[in-house]
Amino acid sequence: MNSKFIVIEGLEGAGKTSAHAVVVETLRTFGIDDIVFTREPGGTPLAEKLRELIKQGVADEKLTDKAELLMLYAARVQLVENVIRPALARGAWVVGDRHDLSSQAYQGGGRGIDEQLMTSLRDTVLGDFRPDLTLYLDIPPELGLKRARQRGALDRIELESLAFFERTRARYQQLAAADASIMTIDASRELAQVNADIRQVLSDWLRQLSGRGGVND
Amino acid sequence: MNSKFIVIEGLEGAGKTSAHAVVVETLRTFGIDDIVFTREPGGTPLAEKLRELIKQGVADEKLTDKAELLMLYAARVQLVENVIRPALARGAWVVGDRHDLSSQAYQGGGRGIDEQLMTSLRDTVLGDFRPDLTLYLDIPPELGLKRARQRGALDRIELESLAFFERTRARYQQLAAADASIMTIDASRELAQVNADIRQVLSDWLRQLSGRGGVND
Repeated sequence: MNSKFIVIEGLEGAGKTSAHAVVVETLRTFGIDDIVFTREPGGTPLAEKLRELIKQGVADEKLTDKAELLMLYAARVQLVENVIRPALARGAWVVGDRHDLSSQAYQGGGRGIDEQLMTSLRDTVLGDFRPDLTLYLDIPPELGLKRARQRGALDRIELESLAFFERTRARYQQLAAADASIMTIDASRELAQVNADIRQVLSDWLRQLSGRGGVND
Repeated sequence: MNSKFIVIEGLEGAGKTSAHAVVVETLRTFGIDDIVFTREPGGTPLAEKLRELIKQGVADEKLTDKAELLMLYAARVQLVENVIRPALARGAWVVGDRHDLSSQAYQGGGRGIDEQLMTSLRDTVLGDFRPDLTLYLDIPPELGLKRARQRGALDRIELESLAFFERTRARYQQLAAADASIMTIDASRELAQVNADIRQVLSDWLRQLSGRGGVND
C-alpha cells in the first residue's frame, strides 16, 4: 500500500491520545511500521513556537481571531512542507493529532469566522493537500471538558465558553457528514468500546485500500 | 485635520529612519503633536515575537514563503487592530515604518508569490484599511545594501540576492505608479536633498488636506 496521512480529530478530552495508540497498533498489525507522528499546531521547531504563542498568548495583548487563524496556517504549512510531505514521499505513514479540520471547526464554527474566508484561506495555503482518512472522535463538550480538566490546567482555548465548544462540535459534525473521508466515532462511551470502534473502522479502511482480505482475516 | 496614517516604505538602506525624523518634525510644524510610531513587522508584543521568528528563523528549519507571508499578516492584523486603529480613533496621527506595501513588494515581487493570492489575502485580512499617505523612498538595491551593511550584521532577509531586491524594487515602483496615495522620493541622492524633498511633499499634502495655506505660509 502507498503511504497515507491519517488524522485524529475532536474536541478537548475526546481521547485523541488513546486513539493515536490504537491507530499505531492497528497499522502495525497490517505490517505498517514506518509511522511518523505529528501534532497541530506544532510539529516543527517554528510551528511549536507558534503553538506556544497561540496557546499562551503574549503579555496581556488581545490575540485577534484573524491573527490566530493566520498563525495556525503558518504553522500548518511549515508542517506540511517540511515534515508531512517529505515523510509520505519516502514511504512513511503519517498519523496526525489534528489538522485542517480543527481550524474549520474551531475558527470557522467556534469563532464564527466567515466560511468563505476559511475555505479560500485553506485552498490558498494547502492547495488540494488533504488527509486520506480522518477519525473524528465525537463527544459532548461538557464530557470532554470534564476529562480535560482532570488532566490539569486549561490553556487559553480550553477556557472558552461551553457555547464556543457547542458551535465547534456542530461544525465538526456538519463537515464529517459531508465528507466520506471523515469517519465519526462516538467517543462518549467507555474507552474500551471507543478503541474497539477505531480498530474496526481503521481495519475496514485498510482492507479496502489493500484490495484484499487483509493480513488478519 | 482628522488624524491620518502615514507610512514610510523602501528597500533596506533607503533611509527610512531619517525620513521618520523629518516626517515627525514636519507634522509638528503643522501643530500635530500626538504622533504614534509603528514599525512592521512588529509594534505589539505578539507582533515583535513574530518579527523575531521571521527575521532570525528557528533552528535550521526552512521558512516557507507562505508561512512567512501568513506570519507577516498575523503581525499586521495585531498591529492594526490593537495599535493603529485605536490611535487614529483617539485622534493621534500614526507614522509607520513599513506596512502592507512591503509585503506586496517583498513577498509579491521579491519572492514571486502569486499576485492574486497577495491581493486576496490583503483584502481578507485588512478589508479596506489603507494608509492615507505613503512615502516610498526609491533607491537602487546596490546602494541601499551598501548603506545597510555599514549599519552592521545583515538579517535573513537582508541576505537575499541582489536579484531578489531588484524584483522587490520593480514591484514597489509599479505599485507606486498606480496609486495616487503613494509618493515616490528619489532616495539615492544626498541626505539633505532627500530630507528637503520629504518635507516638501508632506507639507504640500498637509496644506491640501487642511484646505488652507498652512501654518508656515
